[in-house]
Amino acid sequence: MDVEGRRRIVIENLKPEVEGGRLPIKRTIGEKVVVTADIFSDGHDSLSARLQYRTPKGKEWKEVPMKMMENDQWRGEFVVQEMGIYRYTVEGWIDHFKTWQKDLKKRFDSGQDFKVDLWVGAEYIEKASRRASKEDQNKLLLFSKMLKRAKGVKETLSIALGEEITEFMNHYPDRTLAVTYEKELTVVVDQKRALFSSWYELFPRSCASEPGRHGTFGDCENLLSEIVGMGFDTLYFPPIHPIGKTNRKGKNNILKVGPDDVGSPWAIGSEEGGHRSVHPQLGTLEDFERLVRKAKEKGLEIAMDLAFQCSPDHPYVKEHPEWFRWRPDGTLQFAENPPKRYEDIIPLNFETEKWQELWEELKSIVLFWIKKGVCIFRVDNPHTKPFSFWEWLIKEIKGEYPEVIFLSEAFTRPRVMYRLAKIGFAQSYTYFAWRNTKRELIEYLTELTQTEVKEYFRPNFWPNTPDILPEHLQYGGRPAFMIRLVLAATLSSNYGIYGPAFELCIHEALSGKEEYLHSEKYEIKQWNRDIPGNLGDFIVRVNRIRQENPALQKTFNLQFYEVDNETLLFYGKTTDDLSNILFVVVNLDPFHTQSGWVKVPIKELGIDPSQPYLVHDLLSDDKYIWQGERNYVELNPQVLPANIFRVRKRLKKETDFDYFV
Amino acid sequence: MDVEGRRRIVIENLKPEVEGGRLPIKRTIGEKVVVTADIFSDGHDSLSARLQYRTPKGKEWKEVPMKMMENDQWRGEFVVQEMGIYRYTVEGWIDHFKTWQKDLKKRFDSGQDFKVDLWVGAEYIEKASRRASKEDQNKLLLFSKMLKRAKGVKETLSIALGEEITEFMNHYPDRTLAVTYEKELTVVVDQKRALFSSWYELFPRSCASEPGRHGTFGDCENLLSEIVGMGFDTLYFPPIHPIGKTNRKGKNNILKVGPDDVGSPWAIGSEEGGHRSVHPQLGTLEDFERLVRKAKEKGLEIAMDLAFQCSPDHPYVKEHPEWFRWRPDGTLQFAENPPKRYEDIIPLNFETEKWQELWEELKSIVLFWIKKGVCIFRVDNPHTKPFSFWEWLIKEIKGEYPEVIFLSEAFTRPRVMYRLAKIGFAQSYTYFAWRNTKRELIEYLTELTQTEVKEYFRPNFWPNTPDILPEHLQYGGRPAFMIRLVLAATLSSNYGIYGPAFELCIHEALSGKEEYLHSEKYEIKQWNRDIPGNLGDFIVRVNRIRQENPALQKTFNLQFYEVDNETLLFYGKTTDDLSNILFVVVNLDPFHTQSGWVKVPIKELGIDPSQPYLVHDLLSDDKYIWQGERNYVELNPQVLPANIFRVRKRLKKETDFDYFV
Repeated sequence: MDVEGRRRIVIENLKPEVEGGRLPIKRTIGEKVVVTADIFSDGHDSLSARLQYRTPKGKEWKEVPMKMMENDQWRGEFVVQEMGIYRYTVEGWIDHFKTWQKDLKKRFDSGQDFKVDLWVGAEYIEKASRRASKEDQNKLLLFSKMLKRAKGVKETLSIALGEEITEFMNHYPDRTLAVTYEKELTVVVDQKRALFSSWYELFPRSCASEPGRHGTFGDCENLLSEIVGMGFDTLYFPPIHPIGKTNRKGKNNILKVGPDDVGSPWAIGSEEGGHRSVHPQLGTLEDFERLVRKAKEKGLEIAMDLAFQCSPDHPYVKEHPEWFRWRPDGTLQFAENPPKRYEDIIPLNFETEKWQELWEELKSIVLFWIKKGVCIFRVDNPHTKPFSFWEWLIKEIKGEYPEVIFLSEAFTRPRVMYRLAKIGFAQSYTYFAWRNTKRELIEYLTELTQTEVKEYFRPNFWPNTPDILPEHLQYGGRPAFMIRLVLAATLSSNYGIYGPAFELCIHEALSGKEEYLHSEKYEIKQWNRDIPGNLGDFIVRVNRIRQENPALQKTFNLQFYEVDNETLLFYGKTTDDLSNILFVVVNLDPFHTQSGWVKVPIKELGIDPSQPYLVHDLLSDDKYIWQGERNYVELNPQVLPANIFRVRKRLKKETDFDYFV
Repeated sequence: MDVEGRRRIVIENLKPEVEGGRLPIKRTIGEKVVVTADIFSDGHDSLSARLQYRTPKGKEWKEVPMKMMENDQWRGEFVVQEMGIYRYTVEGWIDHFKTWQKDLKKRFDSGQDFKVDLWVGAEYIEKASRRASKEDQNKLLLFSKMLKRAKGVKETLSIALGEEITEFMNHYPDRTLAVTYEKELTVVVDQKRALFSSWYELFPRSCASEPGRHGTFGDCENLLSEIVGMGFDTLYFPPIHPIGKTNRKGKNNILKVGPDDVGSPWAIGSEEGGHRSVHPQLGTLEDFERLVRKAKEKGLEIAMDLAFQCSPDHPYVKEHPEWFRWRPDGTLQFAENPPKRYEDIIPLNFETEKWQELWEELKSIVLFWIKKGVCIFRVDNPHTKPFSFWEWLIKEIKGEYPEVIFLSEAFTRPRVMYRLAKIGFAQSYTYFAWRNTKRELIEYLTELTQTEVKEYFRPNFWPNTPDILPEHLQYGGRPAFMIRLVLAATLSSNYGIYGPAFELCIHEALSGKEEYLHSEKYEIKQWNRDIPGNLGDFIVRVNRIRQENPALQKTFNLQFYEVDNETLLFYGKTTDDLSNILFVVVNLDPFHTQSGWVKVPIKELGIDPSQPYLVHDLLSDDKYIWQGERNYVELNPQVLPANIFRVRKRLKKETDFDYFV
């Protein structure tokens, strides 16, 4: 009995709450945090509850009233406006005055006498007046008097139950026995780009304007306008550091290496430097800084690859042998996952006794590049370094630079991928590349957007990467590339392509594998992005549609709708206010024309079933008049495998379609 | 970096865990606690994990190895053997030796050289030897030497991967960087009766052997053999205390009261005493103690009603006016839920400033009756007293008397009912009385037995109570009573009936309500339980089946099976080892014969599809030979509305059915 036993409120099942509140949820600026909780007490008393939140720099808690929904579930919401860490919790209390009002009404309705009850109410009001401002105090005392006097029944009742007194009493509730939820939950608020971004991946060394030359940052600078023109806002480079020579891999990842072989950019470090240096053939640090600056001027961010591993030639090996694992024969333990061996890469040993120094060094690398203008990091294989390290690193960095975005490149088991998101990665690669059928896509996207996962895991959909050339792109031809582009760009508000290879529909794979033949990871390419059949214009159109339609700038507003064909996928996205409604139909079959009847959720969208509405395919610019739920679609993949319909509801009853907005 | 950053294990999603571990799960002696958790680390290392638990009196943690199931989920279990509070948690660590064995096997399979790797393994073994007993130390060092010597490849490998070394190394794992789950969870272990009990409710004052007399504890004593003979083990009495006179209710709950009216037993307290006294017409405290003792000798427990409320005449009103709510006109606030009024009952004010004294007094009442031999309390309307009070009270009582069982009589909103269970009530009344159709029953029972609810909420199914005469019993005739009895007694291992009224199929209700006409709550009854049509024999049969079949002594082993008729319900219960398999078919239609084809889950039950098996209806004693999945059933409610089949699988291949067990 050492606590206050008269606190009668229970607050349970508060959502969102990740890992029992130990880890934060995620939002971007302008997004809502909707909080629900089961709040109840013993007995029949009325309750009141408030959602409390604190901004990153705020000292005071702000309060929003919560509303009872059903089954003792209450709901409140607030919008986040600043980057950083918000806090929230919930408070509830027995509201004796509200109970009194409810009971008084019932007494009156059933014809019971309530003279004494008016005095009970007057006492509540008098108590409230002691908590009130001088001015309100007088007003409240006046109410109290009126109830005690109780002239006419109806009149007294209208005072007692009236809006005015209710509002006054809501201002001065008796919270002596209020209960605050036992935890403070946190929200990490990122910049908007964390939720809406279009990535283009490029190997700088393949950007030379003429054949046979190693590309430079200067060459990249010349491409910036083109990339921005295609509608991308994030340009991601594989590692730009010096590449090791020991055990360098040759073309197609073979161990035999020729004198011209350039090696994998992920084999970081040579006598020319490590993670703080740039590959001399790409240019200087100053060239890189200039490139970052020029890109920023065009609205483009350069995303940096963060691959915390070393080539055998990395300066760390000599300077910090204690950061590596040495074998009994005195050799360095290279990376392997038996029977696979990565002889050109040495992992850092995070179980080293000098782990603190290692962590600090890696943090200093991130800070180094932040100071060069980088604010987006694509983290290579984060799942092979301890979670505790990432949690610490990201917290440290974002405490100082809340705008920084870390993308997790983990293709591994679901628990591991989700954990990385929970401990701080703002975006994550996904299984999208291997989700092809209607059932697979619906199942996976439902998990990502309709379950608790949406609170912490922001997907970034990539149809291909330098590591992944999925089977359907190998065999589906150009239509398959278009299908996967539309899916990535409309299902997820974050998406990216491994650029030139995607634009040019490169589909030759290593036999029996989902890997590129003659992979750019091991050789310099000379891409001619203008050859016939390239997807440039199509990508421009898709990106423009994304930019012009706010509904596509979110992921968690996705809804799947019915269509009576197993190879057609039909889904929609809308803004909260329904001012922007998009329907997407995708033919998942890259070979044959498919048709079917879609079922439009007209009721949810506020579409009058008796009136036609216009659907405007933003891909083809075709327009169709639809009416009611069931409408016909037909998609020939050789022409266009998808529709992205903007729905234009009629505002007025006139029949002229000019009146559609 | 103030924590050990090298702990690489994550333990998430541990189940069972109620309210983030703040509240306990429940078990009875002999039950299993199955614990699952997602356990994983970065990288590709192998892990080991152990479930740790501590018995109520144990000082040391015991350990059980956990097994990886799939998707990083691990599982372990232990059996509880003592009443009281068990604790459990989970520990996991990177098992470098296990990783080494796994990798060594892969290296060998792919033909890689592993000479140096044998030295790596030898080092792990040497380190382990330093943690080992003298004897094991030598053995381990011998292993280490053998690996270093590495005579023949195959031979060395068979040592390195052999069972012997694996077991030794499992004995001395390196747990320096082990991670223990951050919480210790608790299990409240109750006596077996908390999960398996058969209740009979009786008004002692109606037990007189001759008409017109007020029944006594002595009369009750005469009934004990009969009640035990019917198969009940818990005899529950409504309150046995003095009944107030002020505002006493007359027959059928009217305010006008005659001189002979006996009042409601729940209007507790008069000048003759309060919660520590017995109603003088029932006998003395000594009579009651004797009754409790006599009952216990027959294996019957007397369950006491705990109704923490007062009549206006209760001694507390004068002795502790501060425990009640007084109105501005100086009158006592009686119980009400406007417009309903309970003028004969005064609630205790749990918001009183003297709440500590009130709590202590109520606790002393419970202790008073425990000392008189009572160990089961049916708590009246617990949802009108604070949760914090019950949590404290039950913890206090069970700390001293872990065998005590509290049954929660709350018929209210789901969250409230579940909360009461979570904070300590061992059993709970349910919505069973209002779940009648197949869909309703399946939905409700699935919630109770297949979700997290099963960890803390033990249902007690009552087809009727003195407060509830459900509609289907009003109209369904004798078959409806049989249907509801079988459902209650086989769906839930705890069940009870409001005795004589049920046995005699009393079905006259207050017009338009689900309440008894001439309710025993307000008058003395003279029941003749032997009149034709009484259900006595049927109840005896059902209770005997429950006693003889351990599968019916659990609730959470319930499985619904398919049957192609919407008025037939088909379900099964089995023991873990399948030594006791029961199928129940109930015709939910009390008026018509219904038939259908059931689908027996023969695969799950290990029944050979090519062989016949015998199903023995324990209700009718009829036997049927079934084969395969689909079998025919037909139930005429006028004869028997249900089958309770004991399944007898054939042990030997002989065709003679003597070989069925």
